[in-house]
Amino acid sequence: MENQKECISSPFCPYVSVDCVLLGINEDKLSVLLVERKLLENNAVGYKLPGSLIYETEELDDAALRVMKEAVGHTQMSLRQFHTFGSVARTAKKEDVLWLEKESHIKVSRIVTVVYLALSKKGKTVSGLDKNETLRWFPVEDLPDLPFDHKSIVEESVNEIRNWVEREPAIVYEYLPSKFTAFQLRRTYEIIYNKKFDVRNFQKKMNLLGYIVPTDEMEVGVPHRAARYYRFNKIKYNKLRSSLNK
Amino acid sequence: MENQKECISSPFCPYVSVDCVLLGINEDKLSVLLVERKLLENNAVGYKLPGSLIYETEELDDAALRVMKEAVGHTQMSLRQFHTFGSVARTAKKEDVLWLEKESHIKVSRIVTVVYLALSKKGKTVSGLDKNETLRWFPVEDLPDLPFDHKSIVEESVNEIRNWVEREPAIVYEYLPSKFTAFQLRRTYEIIYNKKFDVRNFQKKMNLLGYIVPTDEMEVGVPHRAARYYRFNKIKYNKLRSSLNK
Repeated sequence: MENQKECISSPFCPYVSVDCVLLGINEDKLSVLLVERKLLENNAVGYKLPGSLIYETEELDDAALRVMKEAVGHTQMSLRQFHTFGSVARTAKKEDVLWLEKESHIKVSRIVTVVYLALSKKGKTVSGLDKNETLRWFPVEDLPDLPFDHKSIVEESVNEIRNWVEREPAIVYEYLPSKFTAFQLRRTYEIIYNKKFDVRNFQKKMNLLGYIVPTDEMEVGVPHRAARYYRFNKIKYNKLRSSLNK
Repeated sequence: MENQKECISSPFCPYVSVDCVLLGINEDKLSVLLVERKLLENNAVGYKLPGSLIYETEELDDAALRVMKEAVGHTQMSLRQFHTFGSVARTAKKEDVLWLEKESHIKVSRIVTVVYLALSKKGKTVSGLDKNETLRWFPVEDLPDLPFDHKSIVEESVNEIRNWVEREPAIVYEYLPSKFTAFQLRRTYEIIYNKKFDVRNFQKKMNLLGYIVPTDEMEVGVPHRAARYYRFNKIKYNKLRSSLNK
């Protein structure tokens, strides 16, 4: 560890990193993209969020874009700064510190990390995923061991994505075909919220919303009773969500 | 500047600070609380956001609470982490750097600041304000010269507060008496959004919302035509804002 230098100052200055949480629906499960990291013992492999220390003259947003570009091969996603995690306890686990010191050739003290969050859109593939064997989707409910506070970062990111959906339900329709059945809509909500919704209750609420409009078309060639197709009506949606200030 | 030490490391580590933006309605204007700072020339006085570098073993949230406690004498506000500003250009102005180096006895390079945001509730006074002559409310549309990127931090905070109101209009009713006239409601929106709303159009939208309920009571002893009092109905509000996931 020749290049190790300690960050010494008074007052103190920590390292600053960015970490990127890309969430998406994969195999019918809300999932997060993780990247391999080589562990110290027996060349074992672990996973972590894609991330990096920031460079000296690099803007935070640019650091996050660099990390995503390196990980998934493109930056065609709306990556938003979500939250900064800077707890002293982030570097409490000795094996995490040893791993990072080996990787980064630094003497690790405290690391404040600025977390960026994006929702991977349906159809927009993670182009690096086939080629890049070090990347893998993990269901958010079934995460492997993760270093630092990456597990709670993922958990808080999942809550934030649910907040996004609550504030802006239109997001959900980006995950559905332009015409969809009540079952498809309900399944998408069930995946995002990781819970079952009562079929009749969900259908009732759906009818009340006013912006999910039934079409005259029904499913064809299905083994069960054909279901009606619905469409998301963006104009009605915007009108219904108007408030006093617009 | 004896105590100056430079933060040297490879990779680089910047200083990390917290800054607090407390917004409130003061003299009928959306305002921000600023704190005095002594300038170098002629003992002149400038203003800045309340803030501080973080201590070595201090959590980010605790640093923000410490800053608010020092500034306003209490922490009875919902202080939320809003956004981290870390641009290299933050320390581009030489006079800002000189001022901070003198204040903090550090050699300033880059400073990443985690900004916390709170809305000062009506009635909850800033207890330090009378005693503490170094504190002052400034209308957000009429800010003095501010150091670093504090001006744009205030501007982005104002946008964020408007986002809060848009997402959660209930916030506005914390600024109104339990019964209020259409004029009072409109004025509160005009102050928050810094624009005039058309009287008839506003009244029409207000009637359509469904959770602003007319009472039988009218103003008394006013020199103009007595206006009707309305109440904010939280139960109807929550019901009307239900979504598919709840």
